[in-house]
Amino acid sequence: MRKAVVLRWGHRYRDKRLTSHVALTARALGASGLVLADARDDKVKATIEKVTAQWGGDFRVEMGRHWKQVVSDWRAEGGIIVHLTAYGENIQTSDVLQRLKDTRKDVLVIVGSRKVPSEFFSEEASDYNVAIGNQPHSECSSLAVFLDRLFEGRELLREFDRAKVRVIPQKRGKKISTT
Amino acid sequence: MRKAVVLRWGHRYRDKRLTSHVALTARALGASGLVLADARDDKVKATIEKVTAQWGGDFRVEMGRHWKQVVSDWRAEGGIIVHLTAYGENIQTSDVLQRLKDTRKDVLVIVGSRKVPSEFFSEEASDYNVAIGNQPHSECSSLAVFLDRLFEGRELLREFDRAKVRVIPQKRGKKISTT
Repeated sequence: MRKAVVLRWGHRYRDKRLTSHVALTARALGASGLVLADARDDKVKATIEKVTAQWGGDFRVEMGRHWKQVVSDWRAEGGIIVHLTAYGENIQTSDVLQRLKDTRKDVLVIVGSRKVPSEFFSEEASDYNVAIGNQPHSECSSLAVFLDRLFEGRELLREFDRAKVRVIPQKRGKKISTT
Repeated sequence: MRKAVVLRWGHRYRDKRLTSHVALTARALGASGLVLADARDDKVKATIEKVTAQWGGDFRVEMGRHWKQVVSDWRAEGGIIVHLTAYGENIQTSDVLQRLKDTRKDVLVIVGSRKVPSEFFSEEASDYNVAIGNQPHSECSSLAVFLDRLFEGRELLREFDRAKVRVIPQKRGKKISTT
Protein backbone atom coordinates (compact mmCIF):
# COMPACT_ATOMS: atom_id res chain seq x y z
CA MET A 1 0.00 0.00 0.00
CA ARG A 2 1.30 3.43 -0.88
CA LYS A 3 2.19 5.68 2.04
CA ALA A 4 0.20 8.78 2.99
CA VAL A 5 1.19 11.41 5.55
CA VAL A 6 -1.01 14.33 6.57
CA LEU A 7 0.32 17.86 6.89
CA ARG A 8 -1.95 19.91 9.11
CA TRP A 9 -1.45 23.61 8.56
CA GLY A 10 -2.62 26.54 10.64
CA HIS A 11 -3.20 24.81 13.96
CA ARG A 12 -3.88 27.16 16.86
CA TYR A 13 -4.26 26.30 20.52
CA ARG A 14 -8.07 26.51 20.41
CA ASP A 15 -8.02 23.93 17.59
CA LYS A 16 -6.61 21.16 19.73
CA ARG A 17 -9.72 19.01 19.67
CA LEU A 18 -10.18 19.44 15.93
CA THR A 19 -6.54 18.70 15.26
CA SER A 20 -6.80 15.61 17.44
CA HIS A 21 -9.77 14.52 15.32
CA VAL A 22 -7.75 15.12 12.15
CA ALA A 23 -4.94 13.00 13.58
CA LEU A 24 -7.28 10.18 14.68
CA THR A 25 -8.89 10.26 11.24
CA ALA A 26 -5.51 10.03 9.58
CA ARG A 27 -4.54 7.08 11.77
CA ALA A 28 -7.84 5.20 11.47
CA LEU A 29 -7.95 5.65 7.69
CA GLY A 30 -4.52 4.42 6.80
CA ALA A 31 -2.13 7.37 6.96
CA SER A 32 1.27 6.74 8.55
CA GLY A 33 1.64 10.03 10.34
CA LEU A 34 0.71 13.63 10.91
CA VAL A 35 2.93 16.67 10.68
CA LEU A 36 1.71 19.68 12.62
CA ALA A 37 3.47 22.33 10.55
CA ASP A 38 4.48 25.70 11.96
CA ALA A 39 3.02 24.85 15.36
CA ARG A 40 3.57 22.75 18.44
CA ASP A 41 0.91 21.31 20.71
CA ASP A 42 2.03 18.75 23.24
CA LYS A 43 -1.55 17.94 24.23
CA VAL A 44 -2.41 16.82 20.71
CA LYS A 45 0.73 14.72 20.55
CA ALA A 46 0.01 13.13 23.93
CA THR A 47 -3.59 12.33 22.97
CA ILE A 48 -2.55 10.54 19.80
CA GLU A 49 0.37 8.72 21.39
CA LYS A 50 -1.96 7.43 24.10
CA VAL A 51 -4.31 6.06 21.45
CA THR A 52 -1.44 4.44 19.56
CA ALA A 53 -0.01 2.89 22.73
CA GLN A 54 -3.36 1.24 23.40
CA TRP A 55 -4.68 0.53 19.91
CA GLY A 56 -1.39 -0.24 18.19
CA GLY A 57 0.34 0.70 14.98
CA ASP A 58 3.16 3.08 14.14
CA PHE A 59 1.35 6.35 13.60
CA ARG A 60 3.76 9.24 14.10
CA VAL A 61 3.09 12.81 15.11
CA GLU A 62 5.73 15.35 14.25
CA MET A 63 5.58 19.04 15.18
CA GLY A 64 7.12 22.39 14.49
CA ARG A 65 8.81 22.09 11.09
CA HIS A 66 7.96 24.85 8.63
CA TRP A 67 5.54 23.60 5.98
CA LYS A 68 7.87 24.58 3.16
CA GLN A 69 10.55 22.37 4.63
CA VAL A 70 8.11 19.45 4.97
CA VAL A 71 7.04 19.89 1.36
CA SER A 72 10.55 20.12 -0.03
CA ASP A 73 11.75 17.11 1.99
CA TRP A 74 8.75 15.10 0.76
CA ARG A 75 9.46 16.04 -2.86
CA ALA A 76 13.14 15.18 -2.41
CA GLU A 77 12.07 11.67 -1.40
CA GLY A 78 10.00 11.34 -4.58
CA GLY A 79 6.51 11.87 -3.14
CA ILE A 80 3.60 13.92 -4.49
CA ILE A 81 1.61 16.57 -2.68
CA VAL A 82 -2.15 16.85 -2.57
CA HIS A 83 -3.84 19.94 -1.17
CA LEU A 84 -7.42 19.35 -0.05
CA THR A 85 -9.50 22.43 -0.76
CA ALA A 86 -13.12 23.13 -1.69
CA TYR A 87 -11.77 25.18 -4.64
CA GLY A 88 -9.89 22.32 -6.28
CA GLU A 89 -10.81 19.68 -8.84
CA ASN A 90 -13.87 17.78 -7.67
CA ILE A 91 -12.89 14.22 -6.79
CA GLN A 92 -16.22 12.98 -8.14
CA THR A 93 -16.51 14.89 -11.41
CA SER A 94 -12.86 15.00 -12.50
CA ASP A 95 -10.20 12.36 -13.07
CA VAL A 96 -7.88 13.89 -10.47
CA LEU A 97 -7.89 10.85 -8.19
CA GLN A 98 -6.98 8.54 -11.06
CA ARG A 99 -4.20 10.87 -12.19
CA LEU A 100 -2.63 11.01 -8.78
CA LYS A 101 -3.03 7.27 -8.23
CA ASP A 102 -1.35 6.62 -11.57
CA THR A 103 1.84 8.23 -10.28
CA ARG A 104 2.09 5.33 -7.78
CA LYS A 105 3.93 7.71 -5.46
CA ASP A 106 3.56 8.33 -1.75
CA VAL A 107 1.18 11.16 -0.92
CA LEU A 108 1.56 14.11 1.42
CA VAL A 109 -1.95 15.42 2.07
CA ILE A 110 -2.18 19.07 3.10
CA VAL A 111 -5.22 20.07 5.16
CA GLY A 112 -5.71 23.61 6.37
CA SER A 113 -7.62 24.77 9.38
CA ARG A 114 -8.33 28.36 8.45
CA LYS A 115 -7.60 30.59 5.45
CA VAL A 116 -4.58 28.98 3.85
CA PRO A 117 -1.93 31.09 2.10
CA SER A 118 -2.47 31.31 -1.65
CA GLU A 119 0.92 29.67 -2.08
CA PHE A 120 -0.71 26.34 -1.20
CA PHE A 121 -2.44 26.40 -4.58
CA SER A 122 0.80 26.97 -6.48
CA GLU A 123 3.02 24.39 -8.13
CA GLU A 124 5.61 25.11 -5.52
CA ALA A 125 3.43 23.66 -2.79
CA SER A 126 0.95 21.24 -4.38
CA ASP A 127 0.83 18.86 -7.31
CA TYR A 128 -2.94 18.46 -7.07
CA ASN A 129 -5.69 20.61 -5.56
CA VAL A 130 -8.49 18.22 -4.72
CA ALA A 131 -12.02 19.07 -3.60
CA ILE A 132 -14.22 16.59 -1.75
CA GLY A 133 -17.15 18.39 -3.29
CA ASN A 134 -17.06 22.14 -3.73
CA GLN A 135 -18.98 23.08 -0.61
CA PRO A 136 -17.74 24.44 2.72
CA HIS A 137 -16.64 21.47 4.68
CA SER A 138 -14.63 20.08 7.53
CA GLU A 139 -10.96 19.20 7.16
CA CYS A 140 -11.67 15.98 9.09
CA SER A 141 -14.30 14.80 6.71
CA SER A 142 -12.47 15.87 3.55
CA LEU A 143 -9.46 13.95 4.74
CA ALA A 144 -11.58 10.92 5.60
CA VAL A 145 -13.25 10.67 2.20
CA PHE A 146 -9.96 11.33 0.42
CA LEU A 147 -8.11 8.55 2.27
CA ASP A 148 -11.02 6.13 1.91
CA ARG A 149 -11.02 6.67 -1.85
CA LEU A 150 -7.23 6.71 -2.17
CA PHE A 151 -6.93 3.38 -0.39
CA GLU A 152 -10.21 2.06 -1.87
CA GLY A 153 -11.52 0.94 1.50
CA ARG A 154 -8.61 -1.41 2.17
CA GLU A 155 -7.46 0.88 4.99
CA LEU A 156 -10.41 -0.35 7.06
CA LEU A 157 -9.10 -3.93 6.97
CA ARG A 158 -5.75 -3.05 8.49
CA GLU A 159 -4.51 -4.78 11.59
CA PHE A 160 -2.54 -2.56 13.95
CA ASP A 161 0.60 -4.14 15.37
CA ARG A 162 1.15 -4.34 19.12
CA ALA A 163 -2.44 -3.43 19.95
CA LYS A 164 -3.39 -3.91 23.58
CA VAL A 165 -7.06 -3.52 22.72
CA ARG A 166 -8.97 -4.74 19.68
CA VAL A 167 -12.64 -4.40 18.84
CA ILE A 168 -14.49 -7.53 17.86
CA PRO A 169 -17.22 -6.14 15.59
CA GLN A 170 -20.76 -6.86 16.74
CA LYS A 171 -24.27 -6.28 15.48
CA ARG A 172 -25.24 -5.19 18.99
CA GLY A 173 -23.20 -4.01 21.96
CA LYS A 174 -19.46 -3.70 22.56
CA LYS A 175 -16.89 -6.45 22.54
CA ILE A 176 -13.16 -6.02 22.86
CA SER A 177 -10.23 -8.34 23.28
CA THR A 178 -7.27 -7.28 25.37
CA THR A 179 -3.75 -8.65 25.43
CA MET B 1 -31.96 9.88 -3.72
CA ARG B 2 -32.92 8.49 -0.35
CA LYS B 3 -33.02 10.98 2.52
CA ALA B 4 -30.52 11.02 5.37
CA VAL B 5 -30.73 13.09 8.54
CA VAL B 6 -28.02 13.18 11.20
CA LEU B 7 -28.80 12.95 14.90
CA ARG B 8 -25.94 14.38 16.92
CA TRP B 9 -26.03 13.15 20.50
CA GLY B 10 -24.16 14.41 23.54
CA HIS B 11 -23.28 17.91 22.38
CA ARG B 12 -21.84 20.14 25.07
CA TYR B 13 -20.99 23.80 24.85
CA ARG B 14 -17.27 23.13 24.42
CA ASP B 15 -18.12 20.94 21.41
CA LYS B 16 -19.51 23.77 19.34
CA ARG B 17 -16.77 23.75 16.72
CA LEU B 18 -16.86 19.99 16.38
CA THR B 19 -20.63 19.97 16.14
CA SER B 20 -20.42 22.69 13.49
CA HIS B 21 -18.02 20.47 11.57
CA VAL B 22 -20.41 17.54 11.90
CA ALA B 23 -23.22 19.73 10.55
CA LEU B 24 -21.12 21.07 7.64
CA THR B 25 -20.09 17.51 6.83
CA ALA B 26 -23.71 16.39 6.85
CA ARG B 27 -24.69 19.25 4.55
CA ALA B 28 -21.75 18.89 2.14
CA LEU B 29 -22.19 15.14 1.87
CA GLY B 30 -25.86 14.99 1.06
CA ALA B 31 -27.78 14.83 4.34
CA SER B 32 -30.92 16.96 4.58
CA GLY B 33 -30.58 18.07 8.14
CA LEU B 34 -29.09 17.76 11.60
CA VAL B 35 -30.88 17.21 14.86
CA LEU B 36 -28.99 18.31 17.94
CA ALA B 37 -30.69 16.00 20.41
CA ASP B 38 -31.00 16.81 24.11
CA ALA B 39 -29.14 20.09 23.66
CA ARG B 40 -29.46 23.58 22.29
CA ASP B 41 -26.69 25.72 20.87
CA ASP B 42 -27.71 28.83 19.03
CA LYS B 43 -24.16 29.49 17.84
CA VAL B 44 -24.02 26.20 15.97
CA LYS B 45 -27.42 26.87 14.43
CA ALA B 46 -26.37 30.40 13.39
CA THR B 47 -23.11 29.15 11.85
CA ILE B 48 -24.87 26.59 9.70
CA GLU B 49 -27.71 28.89 8.70
CA LYS B 50 -25.18 31.48 7.57
CA VAL B 51 -23.47 28.87 5.38
CA THR B 52 -26.79 27.75 3.92
CA ALA B 53 -27.89 31.34 3.23
CA GLN B 54 -24.73 31.87 1.21
CA TRP B 55 -24.09 28.46 -0.34
CA GLY B 56 -27.69 27.39 -0.86
CA GLY B 57 -29.78 24.30 -0.26
CA ASP B 58 -32.35 23.38 2.35
CA PHE B 59 -30.24 21.94 5.13
CA ARG B 60 -32.13 22.16 8.41
CA VAL B 61 -30.85 22.31 11.96
CA GLU B 62 -33.23 21.33 14.70
CA MET B 63 -32.45 21.43 18.39
CA GLY B 64 -33.62 20.29 21.76
CA ARG B 65 -35.85 17.28 21.14
CA HIS B 66 -35.05 14.21 23.23
CA TRP B 67 -33.27 11.57 21.16
CA LYS B 68 -35.89 8.94 21.98
CA GLN B 69 -38.56 11.18 20.53
CA VAL B 70 -36.51 11.79 17.37
CA VAL B 71 -35.99 8.04 16.96
CA SER B 72 -39.61 7.13 17.50
CA ASP B 73 -40.86 9.85 15.14
CA TRP B 74 -38.40 8.66 12.48
CA ARG B 75 -39.56 5.08 12.84
CA ALA B 76 -43.19 6.17 12.70
CA GLU B 77 -42.45 7.72 9.31
CA GLY B 78 -40.97 4.44 8.06
CA GLY B 79 -37.26 5.26 8.27
CA ILE B 80 -34.37 3.15 9.53
CA ILE B 81 -31.79 4.10 12.12
CA VAL B 82 -28.04 3.64 11.80
CA HIS B 83 -25.76 4.15 14.79
CA LEU B 84 -22.16 4.89 13.83
CA THR B 85 -19.83 3.28 16.36
CA ALA B 86 -16.35 1.77 16.27
CA TYR B 87 -17.87 -1.34 17.93
CA GLY B 88 -20.36 -2.08 15.18
CA GLU B 89 -20.22 -4.16 12.00
CA ASN B 90 -17.28 -3.03 9.87
CA ILE B 91 -18.58 -1.33 6.73
CA GLN B 92 -15.71 -2.83 4.74
CA THR B 93 -15.69 -6.43 5.97
CA SER B 94 -19.41 -7.02 6.46
CA ASP B 95 -22.47 -6.68 4.22
CA VAL B 96 -24.10 -4.16 6.57
CA LEU B 97 -24.14 -1.33 4.03
CA GLN B 98 -25.79 -3.51 1.41
CA ARG B 99 -28.38 -4.73 3.91
CA LEU B 100 -29.35 -1.23 4.93
CA LYS B 101 -29.38 0.01 1.34
CA ASP B 102 -31.63 -2.89 0.36
CA THR B 103 -34.32 -1.55 2.67
CA ARG B 104 -34.55 1.52 0.37
CA LYS B 105 -35.66 3.52 3.39
CA ASP B 106 -34.62 6.95 4.61
CA VAL B 107 -31.79 6.84 7.13
CA LEU B 108 -31.40 8.56 10.47
CA VAL B 109 -27.68 8.47 11.30
CA ILE B 110 -26.80 8.70 14.99
CA VAL B 111 -23.37 10.08 15.84
CA GLY B 112 -22.23 10.45 19.41
CA SER B 113 -19.73 12.89 20.78
CA ARG B 114 -18.69 11.13 23.98
CA LYS B 115 -19.59 7.88 25.70
CA VAL B 116 -23.02 7.06 24.34
CA PRO B 117 -25.62 5.28 26.48
CA SER B 118 -25.67 1.53 25.94
CA GLU B 119 -29.27 1.90 24.81
CA PHE B 120 -27.96 3.21 21.48
CA PHE B 121 -26.82 -0.31 20.65
CA SER B 122 -30.22 -1.83 21.38
CA GLU B 123 -32.99 -2.61 18.93
CA GLU B 124 -35.02 0.11 20.54
CA ALA B 125 -32.63 2.78 19.26
CA SER B 126 -30.78 1.41 16.25
CA ASP B 127 -31.46 -0.95 13.38
CA TYR B 128 -27.79 -1.16 12.41
CA ASN B 129 -24.57 -0.48 14.33
CA VAL B 130 -22.01 0.44 11.70
CA ALA B 131 -18.25 0.89 12.16
CA ILE B 132 -16.14 2.90 9.74
CA GLY B 133 -13.28 0.65 10.73
CA ASN B 134 -12.96 -0.55 14.30
CA GLN B 135 -10.44 2.04 15.48
CA PRO B 136 -10.94 5.16 17.60
CA HIS B 137 -12.08 7.81 15.25
CA SER B 138 -13.76 11.13 14.74
CA GLU B 139 -17.52 11.45 14.42
CA CYS B 140 -16.97 13.88 11.53
CA SER B 141 -14.93 11.46 9.52
CA SER B 142 -17.09 8.42 10.29
CA LEU B 143 -20.09 10.37 9.14
CA ALA B 144 -18.28 11.55 5.99
CA VAL B 145 -17.24 8.07 4.88
CA PHE B 146 -20.65 6.65 5.73
CA LEU B 147 -22.52 9.26 3.67
CA ASP B 148 -20.06 9.01 0.78
CA ARG B 149 -20.61 5.26 0.62
CA LEU B 150 -24.36 5.44 1.22
CA PHE B 151 -24.81 7.89 -1.65
CA GLU B 152 -22.01 6.29 -3.72
CA GLY B 153 -20.34 9.62 -4.41
CA ARG B 154 -23.38 11.14 -6.08
CA GLU B 155 -23.75 13.56 -3.16
CA LEU B 156 -20.69 15.42 -4.46
CA LEU B 157 -22.45 16.23 -7.74
CA ARG B 158 -25.36 17.97 -6.07
CA GLU B 159 -26.30 21.50 -6.97
CA PHE B 160 -27.55 23.60 -4.07
CA ASP B 161 -30.61 25.72 -4.84
CA ARG B 162 -30.58 29.46 -4.23
CA ALA B 163 -26.80 29.61 -3.79
CA LYS B 164 -25.35 33.11 -3.75
CA VAL B 165 -21.85 31.69 -4.11
CA ARG B 166 -20.64 28.76 -6.17
CA VAL B 167 -17.13 27.38 -6.59
CA ILE B 168 -15.91 26.83 -10.11
CA PRO B 169 -13.42 23.98 -9.62
CA GLN B 170 -9.86 24.77 -10.69
CA LYS B 171 -6.57 22.95 -10.91
CA ARG B 172 -4.90 26.01 -9.38
CA GLY B 173 -6.26 28.92 -7.38
CA LYS B 174 -9.76 29.93 -6.32
CA LYS B 175 -12.64 30.83 -8.59
CA ILE B 176 -16.19 31.53 -7.50
CA SER B 177 -19.30 32.82 -9.20
CA THR B 178 -21.71 35.01 -7.29
CA THR B 179 -25.32 35.80 -8.03
